[in-house]
Amino acid sequence: MLTQRFNLKEYLNDQRAFVDAALLAHIERLCPSAHLKPAVIHSVTAGGKRVRPILCLAGCAAVGGDPADALAAACALEMIHTYSLIHDDLPALDNDSLRRGQPTCHVRFGEATAILAGDALLNMAFELLSEACAGAGVDAVPRWHTVLGVVSRAAGCRGMIEGQARDLAFEGVKIDQEALEAMHRLKTGALIQASAHAGAVLGHGSDRQVAHLIRYADRIGLSFQVVDDVLNVKGDPAVTGKSVGSDQARRKNTYPALLGLARAEAYADQLIEQGLQALSIFDNKADPLRAIARYIIDRDH
Amino acid sequence: MLTQRFNLKEYLNDQRAFVDAALLAHIERLCPSAHLKPAVIHSVTAGGKRVRPILCLAGCAAVGGDPADALAAACALEMIHTYSLIHDDLPALDNDSLRRGQPTCHVRFGEATAILAGDALLNMAFELLSEACAGAGVDAVPRWHTVLGVVSRAAGCRGMIEGQARDLAFEGVKIDQEALEAMHRLKTGALIQASAHAGAVLGHGSDRQVAHLIRYADRIGLSFQVVDDVLNVKGDPAVTGKSVGSDQARRKNTYPALLGLARAEAYADQLIEQGLQALSIFDNKADPLRAIARYIIDRDH
Repeated sequence: MLTQRFNLKEYLNDQRAFVDAALLAHIERLCPSAHLKPAVIHSVTAGGKRVRPILCLAGCAAVGGDPADALAAACALEMIHTYSLIHDDLPALDNDSLRRGQPTCHVRFGEATAILAGDALLNMAFELLSEACAGAGVDAVPRWHTVLGVVSRAAGCRGMIEGQARDLAFEGVKIDQEALEAMHRLKTGALIQASAHAGAVLGHGSDRQVAHLIRYADRIGLSFQVVDDVLNVKGDPAVTGKSVGSDQARRKNTYPALLGLARAEAYADQLIEQGLQALSIFDNKADPLRAIARYIIDRDH
Repeated sequence: MLTQRFNLKEYLNDQRAFVDAALLAHIERLCPSAHLKPAVIHSVTAGGKRVRPILCLAGCAAVGGDPADALAAACALEMIHTYSLIHDDLPALDNDSLRRGQPTCHVRFGEATAILAGDALLNMAFELLSEACAGAGVDAVPRWHTVLGVVSRAAGCRGMIEGQARDLAFEGVKIDQEALEAMHRLKTGALIQASAHAGAVLGHGSDRQVAHLIRYADRIGLSFQVVDDVLNVKGDPAVTGKSVGSDQARRKNTYPALLGLARAEAYADQLIEQGLQALSIFDNKADPLRAIARYIIDRDH
């Protein structure tokens, strides 16, 4: 049950501030480069919602852990997410010149710097996780090893990078819902699941709790994508920041194209219900996760 | 003293075969992707000399360790090196269409796939190191944490990536020897040092041994670069695979341009002598490292 008094907006602002302070401090420390830091900072501060780090911290809190114990993992996850956006936006890939209303990294700093800034962020994520492993107390080391494994796997060829490769390969090719869903589970789902997974492990979650949080993250991750596709068809461009029907114009494989608008919307609802169901084993410490799930359905951008 | 009977060519062939078998097996396992594996394999098998993995294994052996204990680190280092070449060759960076006589990754597979294949290799290196950490026995864990820290730092914004950024920034700009040397120490030196460092740590080397091997790697790494520049001026293009004077034509900052050819050659010799000097504390288990140092000076490509 969602506690009525829980203020999601305030919660998200607090968590974002918590993440951002640490994230920027890590970048200052790990990336002193005059050539690369401006590009890295530009992309990291370009208005991201911090979905992955917040899921990591909220997953940690849901199992009764202290979110501070998951903060380094949360920052590493956002670094990996940001690098993937920088490389995805490049001319050879999606060729996007705007993201969240800001010029993309290669538009602002040139393609060469954008490629290196992306590389830098991916590498930095592992520098951070490496420090966390080395600095962990004896009993925490196995948890950090699990996190390192979960995050590196989710970000790689059996996760996000494979999803990006499939997304490229599918451009202009008609695929079925199963293939679309498998692509999204890799391209965005894997890192979203890894976020909740890492947080739960660092919060000392039981195997059962971890499994439920992974299921939750899987469902809300997919739902988020379905809602994105729906908003592209019927959203207000002033609010979504994208032109209506741009997916259709680019012949992208989307849920509305495959299922029709009404069934796509119903599917998004169903996924959120499954996500909330997965949280039923948790007490009110999972209220932020419940509120995030409901927000995905209710959002307009 | 260099043992006369030591056969460097045979040694290098054996080590390459040892590394390659493991490297390809790791790629098969960690990168099952139909979209990315061909590009990854293409670049990994495009005739690399395996300098970094061999330094890692030889560093391990020099301190009395079993090179098999350093094999995962050796593979990770070659993955990182290969990713850096793929991204460096991209049109936005060096725009090279040939490397070691083979079409570069983006020429063969397209730019998008090349960017993702580079990302995949960097990520894979950390998947491999993550597995090594998780699979290490209790007493080996601190050594693997050191390796993870050393490698991730050397590859990042305080190492290789910063070197690439400076190399780009210096294009067509006249710099002094100090700036050139700092750039090379970052761009190639950091990962070469990390290779010997990682091997020595995994071979249970003492702090003093590790420090001497880092010094050795620093000197031969720099010398390698000086010899490269010299060969570009006076090498046989049929052997070097590059046109004579191509660096000059591209207004690259080189040692011959800064010091003149004769002083550049003398400097390369001096660096090798310093590298050999750093090995004086080791017995004949460091003979491969001695032979590699001499080979750098004597090579013609």
